[in-house]
Amino acid sequence: MSSTVEAYPPLRVKDRVLMGPGPSPVHPRVLEAMSLPLYGHLDPEFVKLMDETQNRLRQVFRTGNKLTIAVSGTGSAGMEAVVVNLIEPGDKMLVCVNGVFGERMCDVAERARAEVVRIDRPYGEAFTPEEVEKAIKAHKPAVVGIVHAETSTGVWQPVEEIARIAHENGALIAIDTVTSLAGVPVEIDGWDIDAVYSGTQKCLSCPPGLAPVSFGDRAMAKLRARKTKVQSWYLDLTMIEKYWGSDRFYHHTAPISMNYALYEALGLVLDEGLEARHARHMLNHKALAAGIEALGMRYFTQEGFRLPQLNCVVIPDGVEDMPVRKRLLEEWGIEVGGGLGPVKGKAWRIGLMGHGSCPENVRLVLAALETCLRDLGAVKSSGEAVAAADAVYGSA
Amino acid sequence: MSSTVEAYPPLRVKDRVLMGPGPSPVHPRVLEAMSLPLYGHLDPEFVKLMDETQNRLRQVFRTGNKLTIAVSGTGSAGMEAVVVNLIEPGDKMLVCVNGVFGERMCDVAERARAEVVRIDRPYGEAFTPEEVEKAIKAHKPAVVGIVHAETSTGVWQPVEEIARIAHENGALIAIDTVTSLAGVPVEIDGWDIDAVYSGTQKCLSCPPGLAPVSFGDRAMAKLRARKTKVQSWYLDLTMIEKYWGSDRFYHHTAPISMNYALYEALGLVLDEGLEARHARHMLNHKALAAGIEALGMRYFTQEGFRLPQLNCVVIPDGVEDMPVRKRLLEEWGIEVGGGLGPVKGKAWRIGLMGHGSCPENVRLVLAALETCLRDLGAVKSSGEAVAAADAVYGSA
Repeated sequence: MSSTVEAYPPLRVKDRVLMGPGPSPVHPRVLEAMSLPLYGHLDPEFVKLMDETQNRLRQVFRTGNKLTIAVSGTGSAGMEAVVVNLIEPGDKMLVCVNGVFGERMCDVAERARAEVVRIDRPYGEAFTPEEVEKAIKAHKPAVVGIVHAETSTGVWQPVEEIARIAHENGALIAIDTVTSLAGVPVEIDGWDIDAVYSGTQKCLSCPPGLAPVSFGDRAMAKLRARKTKVQSWYLDLTMIEKYWGSDRFYHHTAPISMNYALYEALGLVLDEGLEARHARHMLNHKALAAGIEALGMRYFTQEGFRLPQLNCVVIPDGVEDMPVRKRLLEEWGIEVGGGLGPVKGKAWRIGLMGHGSCPENVRLVLAALETCLRDLGAVKSSGEAVAAADAVYGSA
Repeated sequence: MSSTVEAYPPLRVKDRVLMGPGPSPVHPRVLEAMSLPLYGHLDPEFVKLMDETQNRLRQVFRTGNKLTIAVSGTGSAGMEAVVVNLIEPGDKMLVCVNGVFGERMCDVAERARAEVVRIDRPYGEAFTPEEVEKAIKAHKPAVVGIVHAETSTGVWQPVEEIARIAHENGALIAIDTVTSLAGVPVEIDGWDIDAVYSGTQKCLSCPPGLAPVSFGDRAMAKLRARKTKVQSWYLDLTMIEKYWGSDRFYHHTAPISMNYALYEALGLVLDEGLEARHARHMLNHKALAAGIEALGMRYFTQEGFRLPQLNCVVIPDGVEDMPVRKRLLEEWGIEVGGGLGPVKGKAWRIGLMGHGSCPENVRLVLAALETCLRDLGAVKSSGEAVAAADAVYGSA
């Protein structure tokens, strides 16, 4: 018998527990949807699936907006789609920057030739409505951009009051819900948000590759009144809406399998119910936070503004970032995120997103962290972290 | 016993034989790869997979270009990535237009604020090197853009001679290989092409969602010498190359599952071998063409310039486009493409791409077309189309 080595053997992957800033663990039903044979992008059956996806997206965004679609790119493409469609060269855009994604929004807006005005908060802190109001009154922007859930710091930014202030001053408001959608309440109509984008790979527990986007009436009016073409052909919503609308006018070939996955993931979200899903995220966060406290660690993020799905915790003094994360990955298969930008090396980002927000993951990461830190002499506890989490579950 | 209706049952799909202009049928091994659990986008195992994907892409593009990557969007995002990275405002770009995708390239280039000069050929015809040379000498463009495989008309455009002429006149050349790659020869280094993009959902037989892109030395030099930022943040190759390069600098979250699929699809292409794959596409095309001729139908595309993987055939006089395609889809599950732009209603586009380029599909579509056309009184043949195809296979 001869033995041969296959040059291109089928891909196999190692087990991972995804507890970083995304991608999050994907539900088996969504993975199954990804493996279904493809329809053409103009097939009547696929068109029905797109209609139902829009219907589901509207429910999850809590909006009646007609233009509610999935842009064919990841969350950052969603950000760019919102900015380049809303902004015409010379438009003033006020961007609130308290993390990497606020920074990114400035960069995207500058490339769209907006006149960008930025206000800054230290990483880890939230903006107050008063300081945003002051900047709006001083600069009279056409659009205000703010991140609802700052993935780089775990800040949960209230936006309802800021939306009201923006409108009182004649500005539109665009928000980033990449990490918030389906993890904490997002109320597009209730908060009167003009434009929003998100990503699939966080609390929707879908693979990365699509960016849900929704435009309200004011944003649509600004889009329709444009004097210049949207600078990105690929992200031009005036054309994309004709493909998602009743015309089904060919624009680009939709990523079929990714749309299957989003359809399925949204079904799972709605099946659970948004309120139940938010409560689940909050409970697992509280259990994790109790364990983190039992380990003597503290949150990087300002108290009262912590996202339950993204726990940004300070790395204890004397502990190095990479060796711990490497050990978590290699011994436990756990992925935890490092800090981004100025937070690099200073904090870990522990994600409890979507399908990954569960007691098993909370206990696993606490036990693993305790072991790593104990071996480094950074904590003395033995079992207390998991016990503290369990106490939260016991009293829930 | 109570019966309940599940509000969000798992997605199920109907069988389709994808014989349109793409997406093409996806190999079961690629579908399986899509359903694997996810790595994080900075996981060392995913990084290895990206390295190997680049290695495989270079083999399929037949290039040593370092910047050979998969852009996180569909083929049109690949077009936009090439244009916005190569073009600075005011740069002159000559675009050769003989179909919808040449038109699109003009639109994308104008939005990038290129000074666009276009030359036109009727849809269905190829450009001669002489006419392109005349335009290059007259206009002295910085970049020449041309479509190697015009998906809207099935034109197979020779580009090697045009690349030589462009370089002699100080211009770069960018080509669209969305439909050609892995179906007919593409020789990026052999033809001295500066920039190229493709799509995954044609002859690579992967789902849509990624755009392979490669930049050669001249294109890299132009990119590095830019005085202005690339207008698209999402498609900025100066940043994306740092994620794909040894830095692994975070840019955006890569579509993990789509990258699994591309990795697997490229493995299948290389396992078959490029020459064998091209020969397979050509043989099935010849068999189909014999059947089309037996039906008394003719090609829309100029003789001598017909892509084997995209057969654009004229709809017989008195036959309506939609009813026939509807019947093909509903009775046989066959998707055939309609005409695009000015060809709408005048031609069908029959794809024999990648995994879908096989005798079974050739016979199936010929039998189905013969039945439809016979029932409409447009042909009298009965079995001759399949017999003509079989004769080609018999003599191969």
